[in-house]
Amino acid sequence: MLIGFGTVNTAFAQKKSTTIATNNKVTAKVLQEILDKNKHFATQGKVADYIPELGKMNPNAIAFSVVDADGNVISVGDVSKKFTIQSISKIIALMIAVQEKGESEVFKNMGYYGTHQPFNHFANLEVSGKPLNPMMNAGAILTTSMIAGEGEIPFQKILNMIRFITKNNQISLNETVFLSEKETGHRNRGMFYLLKNNGLIHSTEEQLDTYFKQCSIEVSAEDLAKIAFFFANGCVRFDGDKTYKNIEMAQLIQSQMLIAGMYEFSGVYARTIGLPSKSGVGGGIAACVPGKMGIGIFSAPLDSQGNSIAGYQMILDFSRRFQLNIFQP
Amino acid sequence: MLIGFGTVNTAFAQKKSTTIATNNKVTAKVLQEILDKNKHFATQGKVADYIPELGKMNPNAIAFSVVDADGNVISVGDVSKKFTIQSISKIIALMIAVQEKGESEVFKNMGYYGTHQPFNHFANLEVSGKPLNPMMNAGAILTTSMIAGEGEIPFQKILNMIRFITKNNQISLNETVFLSEKETGHRNRGMFYLLKNNGLIHSTEEQLDTYFKQCSIEVSAEDLAKIAFFFANGCVRFDGDKTYKNIEMAQLIQSQMLIAGMYEFSGVYARTIGLPSKSGVGGGIAACVPGKMGIGIFSAPLDSQGNSIAGYQMILDFSRRFQLNIFQP
Amino acid sequence: MLIGFGTVNTAFAQKKSTTIATNNKVTAKVLQEILDKNKHFATQGKVADYIPELGKMNPNAIAFSVVDADGNVISVGDVSKKFTIQSISKIIALMIAVQEKGESEVFKNMGYYGTHQPFNHFANLEVSGKPLNPMMNAGAILTTSMIAGEGEIPFQKILNMIRFITKNNQISLNETVFLSEKETGHRNRGMFYLLKNNGLIHSTEEQLDTYFKQCSIEVSAEDLAKIAFFFANGCVRFDGDKTYKNIEMAQLIQSQMLIAGMYEFSGVYARTIGLPSKSGVGGGIAACVPGKMGIGIFSAPLDSQGNSIAGYQMILDFSRRFQLNIFQP
Amino acid sequence: MLIGFGTVNTAFAQKKSTTIATNNKVTAKVLQEILDKNKHFATQGKVADYIPELGKMNPNAIAFSVVDADGNVISVGDVSKKFTIQSISKIIALMIAVQEKGESEVFKNMGYYGTHQPFNHFANLEVSGKPLNPMMNAGAILTTSMIAGEGEIPFQKILNMIRFITKNNQISLNETVFLSEKETGHRNRGMFYLLKNNGLIHSTEEQLDTYFKQCSIEVSAEDLAKIAFFFANGCVRFDGDKTYKNIEMAQLIQSQMLIAGMYEFSGVYARTIGLPSKSGVGGGIAACVPGKMGIGIFSAPLDSQGNSIAGYQMILDFSRRFQLNIFQP
Repeated sequence: MLIGFGTVNTAFAQKKSTTIATNNKVTAKVLQEILDKNKHFATQGKVADYIPELGKMNPNAIAFSVVDADGNVISVGDVSKKFTIQSISKIIALMIAVQEKGESEVFKNMGYYGTHQPFNHFANLEVSGKPLNPMMNAGAILTTSMIAGEGEIPFQKILNMIRFITKNNQISLNETVFLSEKETGHRNRGMFYLLKNNGLIHSTEEQLDTYFKQCSIEVSAEDLAKIAFFFANGCVRFDGDKTYKNIEMAQLIQSQMLIAGMYEFSGVYARTIGLPSKSGVGGGIAACVPGKMGIGIFSAPLDSQGNSIAGYQMILDFSRRFQLNIFQP
Repeated sequence: MLIGFGTVNTAFAQKKSTTIATNNKVTAKVLQEILDKNKHFATQGKVADYIPELGKMNPNAIAFSVVDADGNVISVGDVSKKFTIQSISKIIALMIAVQEKGESEVFKNMGYYGTHQPFNHFANLEVSGKPLNPMMNAGAILTTSMIAGEGEIPFQKILNMIRFITKNNQISLNETVFLSEKETGHRNRGMFYLLKNNGLIHSTEEQLDTYFKQCSIEVSAEDLAKIAFFFANGCVRFDGDKTYKNIEMAQLIQSQMLIAGMYEFSGVYARTIGLPSKSGVGGGIAACVPGKMGIGIFSAPLDSQGNSIAGYQMILDFSRRFQLNIFQP
Repeated sequence: MLIGFGTVNTAFAQKKSTTIATNNKVTAKVLQEILDKNKHFATQGKVADYIPELGKMNPNAIAFSVVDADGNVISVGDVSKKFTIQSISKIIALMIAVQEKGESEVFKNMGYYGTHQPFNHFANLEVSGKPLNPMMNAGAILTTSMIAGEGEIPFQKILNMIRFITKNNQISLNETVFLSEKETGHRNRGMFYLLKNNGLIHSTEEQLDTYFKQCSIEVSAEDLAKIAFFFANGCVRFDGDKTYKNIEMAQLIQSQMLIAGMYEFSGVYARTIGLPSKSGVGGGIAACVPGKMGIGIFSAPLDSQGNSIAGYQMILDFSRRFQLNIFQP
Repeated sequence: MLIGFGTVNTAFAQKKSTTIATNNKVTAKVLQEILDKNKHFATQGKVADYIPELGKMNPNAIAFSVVDADGNVISVGDVSKKFTIQSISKIIALMIAVQEKGESEVFKNMGYYGTHQPFNHFANLEVSGKPLNPMMNAGAILTTSMIAGEGEIPFQKILNMIRFITKNNQISLNETVFLSEKETGHRNRGMFYLLKNNGLIHSTEEQLDTYFKQCSIEVSAEDLAKIAFFFANGCVRFDGDKTYKNIEMAQLIQSQMLIAGMYEFSGVYARTIGLPSKSGVGGGIAACVPGKMGIGIFSAPLDSQGNSIAGYQMILDFSRRFQLNIFQP
């Protein structure tokens, strides 16, 4: 990823001059400045178009939302713009599967590994038979298959959890995207059957539909900021609701986000931004500031790894401005 | 790694009852308690014996050292016990290479990737031709080859940097271990020539000797704690010396430690301990608490990934007791 | 495969004493001798049991059939015993696909490679996206998908070609085996969708059914001998019928049989027996003696590569007795 | 390989019109016709230039030599032109190693596999630890290391065997090529040490020199034809000398030539030419007609797999003209 590496390369040259201290207030003004400064990066990316519905996204729409340490929601840009959550749904599905089956069971046939392989890698399923981690597609398909219930039930659990975390009952499925994903998802279907062949999946193709559906849920940048806040704060909701409070769960999810949430770009991302994050091919990124904030961005054009290109730049700027990098002294 | 996974598995069952707050004082008493509680794990591991000299290490020797946020050094156990630094030297060599050549140049032919492959993996050198990261052997051999100077000079730079960081001029090379490493290091020599074939290494075998030498430097657990403190604190020494202060460097080193410092165990380690760490096959581990402490342990018996088994348990306990996990809310 | 390697190992020690010249007559007496001498090997193998129907095969049933250079059919043992043709059907499907589309088109997305990988290998589909050869499952599924026609038509073409070559209209589908293969064939289904994802397959799952069906056609050892004769003789039938005569086709099929027909055992098989052969997991092997004979054997117990263990030994003995090895001076 | 595949593609279109029967006489006139018709292909290839000495070869020099079934040597073109034998030496080294240690011992840590991987592939040394076959570099380095004797002895054995088979005592080492190979052979040196690491090689780098030397022996096309005749005829020399007569050895060598002698092009080569052959990057090919002839060609420009491009075309024409394909009915 040239942009990421470029950032790395110039990092040492830059004087880290006038950074704002972490306890400084996050304001809409600051977010707007960052958005304005970085929105031009969108022109260097490419909107996902593997299904026609995704290709229709407006490449100029951009939004930046933060839930600060006090649970205040600050958003700028196209805040009402909806887009499909795609792979960011994987952290919700992982949470539910672990709640139901226990971490030990969920990871019995799956690793906690980072990797240089892309999100849809499958060759390793031949060698070890097991997905590398729950952030890549193979592992995510396996994870979703472990959520209990027939028919619509597993999907409803995922949708309801997202609605709960965001306190937004308007969130729902984009049926058109779902049908497109289902129709063209040959590679995911191939991996589903390879996992089934390895004895890891016991359900029918119905559960693969759950996976296609969870990816087709529509959210806004603000919704993502709330999801990120939730995991950054021990599974406590932005309004303080502690129904699902669980420090271990939050550590599990965030550690996987840092290790593998940005796929093969995760190592560079940890180096430059240093925040547990999960991207979706719909153009969203959710980034956690452990114990503090949640960040949600949206901008559809993607870099070559499938991450929102302007989104990455906005989070990078924000992380530096407020010294949020977890490796910050 | 059964122990690591076992820890993960029981994590959710455990009540995180009476944790001591992070601002609580680290004392020798607490460290001794943790050491006493975990030293029995050593009996479940196996001292490295690929060279006779390593196999001679006393499996019962154990040490635990912490440099706290104020730069105080607290150590318990066999604090004067020396052992070879092995792979922990890779972070020092990386620092020097980046200082000299710039991060961009050092990573031109190397990734920032995590991986499920073991420390001595080489198959990927055929596909991409480039090491996955500077923490595994192939990348570390490449890194060291980039340190400028003829003959002894590159090694002296590494040795001097370790002496500087630890303020310990007694630190020196174990010649016997070096000669053994050199004589039996066929796999490292094989990778050296494959990298040379790929046009990544331009030096002669002399520079491979530098690598064998850097691994054969003898340190104590206390030395490791000081090294960890240094990178945890923006490359500021435990006594406050700011000669090498460099936030970006510290972020680079720590992010690589988290992503790949414990090799294929890094993902589980990030999940359970959540601290940037680097292990060596000599039985040492250096663990950074960003912006705060440095931890150094020694216990020779290793688990199947080549990490100190009692060392892992001591750091795990310590991390939980003081809530140091970077994903802690 | 210990048996194969064992054979290789002792080869040089053996005096090749009193071999019968190639122009000597193949008689039922000789075949019976060879069968009797080798039938005990069946006890060292294991009947395929990945579907219950296959596991029911009698491990003691054994048959040995040869069509000699004059088209005479000589058979001994359980000559009327039927078994499913399994992977031997791949050479028939390849012939039909090449007839219809031309060799160039059929191999546009597939190699002519030998390999050390097993018959159901799929990892390479990630790297190059293309099956290694038409003898392994991935390539065979691709091959069958290229046979034109809707619904039952492609299957009927394969069945009819087998009936033509054997002049045996009794040959038909074992419906129970087909349904079992279809139900449990997750790995083949996985590969079908990966090939579809790579843009190589354009048909629906119906064409995968064709593949499961072609494998479930029931034949006898005599039928296999006639199929082998056909390809050994430029696609001329054992009774002299020249309807499909095609030297290039016969060279294509036989070269692939030699290179990959026995999967990863092909290299050892070429060394020891030196005849283009194709095995099926049902316990059959068809072996061509170029320009001369066709050999068909049946014995259900398989070695670890999935080849009939007593069948291999019978062909080895026969090949030596009549000096049929293609590398024979 | 476009040329090879192109040949395959047109094969079915071609009328195999006026082929000369196999018992027809091979004459200098026929060879000259074939040479003249195909020499233009050389302009489509590229002379190997990984060492300067090889790059100096005249791309227009071309020679075609056949030893017929009666041991007559017929040669046309630049028959006195010398070139380095390169990988064709591997079959000689294999013969000597098997003579000394037995086939069982030589193949204890090496396969008989064909492959789609190139000649200098090494990644599989990580997975299984064992070379795929003795025709690729890794396996050939291992094979040579098994030839007994100190210093120059193993090389002298190889040189003497080539001199014996060709009855040509003028054959000797090209010292300049050897030194270049040695100096630049980083990849071979890398594989040597990986094999040593795997416990397969017990000798020092001196034995790697033997490998570099055997590749640097200078021969002519006529010498290659005699070598090919030798293995095609049960290790009987072209003048009838039976000192090394050994049918099993000849079958081993030829089967490996067919399976892997042309590297990843072997499958296509078996399909189109159908003769056990071994190529060298110096521009030579030795091709066996089992029980009959030996063919030797030279033309330095190579195709993308590293095989002589005009050489391939000449052998293809010759094989068709005399119907020599081993899969010929």
